[in-house]
Amino acid sequence: MPASPDRIRQVVDDYVRLVGTGTADEIVALYAADATVEDPVGSDVRTGHAAIREFYAGLEGLKQDTRLITARVAGGEVAFVFEIVTHAGEKTYTLAPLDAMTFDDDGLITTMRAYWGDTDMVVS
Amino acid sequence: MPASPDRIRQVVDDYVRLVGTGTADEIVALYAADATVEDPVGSDVRTGHAAIREFYAGLEGLKQDTRLITARVAGGEVAFVFEIVTHAGEKTYTLAPLDAMTFDDDGLITTMRAYWGDTDMVVS
Repeated sequence: MPASPDRIRQVVDDYVRLVGTGTADEIVALYAADATVEDPVGSDVRTGHAAIREFYAGLEGLKQDTRLITARVAGGEVAFVFEIVTHAGEKTYTLAPLDAMTFDDDGLITTMRAYWGDTDMVVS
Repeated sequence: MPASPDRIRQVVDDYVRLVGTGTADEIVALYAADATVEDPVGSDVRTGHAAIREFYAGLEGLKQDTRLITARVAGGEVAFVFEIVTHAGEKTYTLAPLDAMTFDDDGLITTMRAYWGDTDMVVS
């Protein structure tokens, strides 16, 4: 049985929260073992927990605030917009990627693709 | 050479405008001949101009206002949120789908997938 809309919304909430304040291990635990991550869309696809952990480990040291802006669940998949505000020194970097995810029957993420480009980053 | 970000943003603008005020033929002209449309995600995939025209022809009679809310271009693809307000009798139906599109080298849409569910429709 595919992941329920409620389960999918919970994973999205957890994902957005953990990107802001969680560890790479906590984020990886949301993914299926053979999941793929393409962030941003058009970049090399990372496959499996080790490659995905490496990706999120790069964010661990950053001071980041995140919030979900809007999500649409359809056919056992989800697409959502969320905001990441990164504080580095005296500057603030704000990015609102649009992510699409698919899930396995256990509600683990099987694919994540993040749509954003350099021009979407706002520095203040 | 893949479609440029500028071309992709133009197609998105045209698409959103034409869903509101265009004809099915005008919308179909944005699609490649063998394009696919899955709207909403999880429903049957429509393939080719005839099937896609039939889909948009169903919207032609409706009084609709549309506007683009936000778009992210990445790797020759795009994902965007737009709003469709449909006026029917004394009621107004507001829906903000999240659409993902891919393109061929001529900037024609090759795939469109729309994320939205019944619970995302607001009736007023």
